[in-house]
Amino acid sequence: MRPDEFQHALSPAGEFSSDDKAAVYRAIETRRDVRDQFLAEPLPDELVTKLLKAAHSAPSVGFMQPWNFTLITDEATKQSAWEAFSRANAEAKLMFAEEQQALYSSLKLEGIRKAPLSICVTCDPTRGGDVVLGRTHNPRMDVYSTVCAIQNLWLAARAEGVGVGWVSIFHDADIREILGIPAHVEIVAWLCLGRVDVLYGEPELAVKGWRQRLPLEELLFRDRWGAR
Amino acid sequence: MRPDEFQHALSPAGEFSSDDKAAVYRAIETRRDVRDQFLAEPLPDELVTKLLKAAHSAPSVGFMQPWNFTLITDEATKQSAWEAFSRANAEAKLMFAEEQQALYSSLKLEGIRKAPLSICVTCDPTRGGDVVLGRTHNPRMDVYSTVCAIQNLWLAARAEGVGVGWVSIFHDADIREILGIPAHVEIVAWLCLGRVDVLYGEPELAVKGWRQRLPLEELLFRDRWGAR
Repeated sequence: MRPDEFQHALSPAGEFSSDDKAAVYRAIETRRDVRDQFLAEPLPDELVTKLLKAAHSAPSVGFMQPWNFTLITDEATKQSAWEAFSRANAEAKLMFAEEQQALYSSLKLEGIRKAPLSICVTCDPTRGGDVVLGRTHNPRMDVYSTVCAIQNLWLAARAEGVGVGWVSIFHDADIREILGIPAHVEIVAWLCLGRVDVLYGEPELAVKGWRQRLPLEELLFRDRWGAR
Repeated sequence: MRPDEFQHALSPAGEFSSDDKAAVYRAIETRRDVRDQFLAEPLPDELVTKLLKAAHSAPSVGFMQPWNFTLITDEATKQSAWEAFSRANAEAKLMFAEEQQALYSSLKLEGIRKAPLSICVTCDPTRGGDVVLGRTHNPRMDVYSTVCAIQNLWLAARAEGVGVGWVSIFHDADIREILGIPAHVEIVAWLCLGRVDVLYGEPELAVKGWRQRLPLEELLFRDRWGAR
């Protein structure tokens, strides 16, 4: 392979205009984890396809593209998922100190029945064969690729006026049974999607007093852990 | 808590203009995993801060914000990390069938020494205390939040004309020792960053014949795994 063999595949790729940069930062900064602002109108197929294409544009280890997307609009299926959430959430509440439980109970932590569309995002670790370029020393890279796809979808959704909420409170086995997901496939996320016309200006858990944003500078080190 | 107690914290949040949507999709679609296109000029501090703020705007389970960012510009530290990569990469190559090894060897899989900045992204699972809202039933949610932060940074970098490459080929223990990362903190990624003026039009592993993009429609199911 000569060093210049692939030069023709390179394209100019400088920085965006100020306006275009601002749009990207606006998607990043105003994206929210939505639980209750979903409007009832169904999402058009073409719009959902655009969001899924954004997800499918994510980086993936060894270009294995390990993701699948199961789109759920069936009401009975959403009801079953909501029941799985409700059972798990009752357990989760009891993990907190008594003085936190009232605030916990007041938080709406999912929008499964309200959002017109749910998407179960999964990772198939067998997609690229037994050996995947870049996964040998970190076997979790396939799931990380899948999470990158979720974040792509989430940001594209913000630009489209679609809210997304990531539900993580359920027993894996319940969702696996409800959707018939094979044992070798990993469930990464249950996402709720629907149009929104309002969003919280700050993350909902900050607005509602659960936990506040940390100062970024406290999270940065220089050249070595702990050095500033 | 009355249902309307937090209404004042909601802001209008509809879809973006066509131009602004196009900018978001352009960042998503033209982002690449960069190994060799890095220019040598150092990245200004203000620019790096903008990218880190984008990362810090990511969703996090229970708003725990479990991430830390160790910024590495020290040449000796980058050299040590490159040596750790090189040792691991020699092992990784041997995992492939003999007929794949020549192509594997021809691929440049990191830009640690060429890129002016590296960022080691870690996840501290103790950040939010023992019990974290949303993590009880999925203990990996903290790492998934950290990956969302990485993808935010990656897309902001694309808009800024900065290339990012995620290096995953190293033994965890090597990077842990080089940077002095405590045992309880998880290493999620070693990122290489630098300005770029060209990028591949398609993912580099596709351009170079390692693996091609899958048709999106093959990855979609309706209401149940396997149903189309």
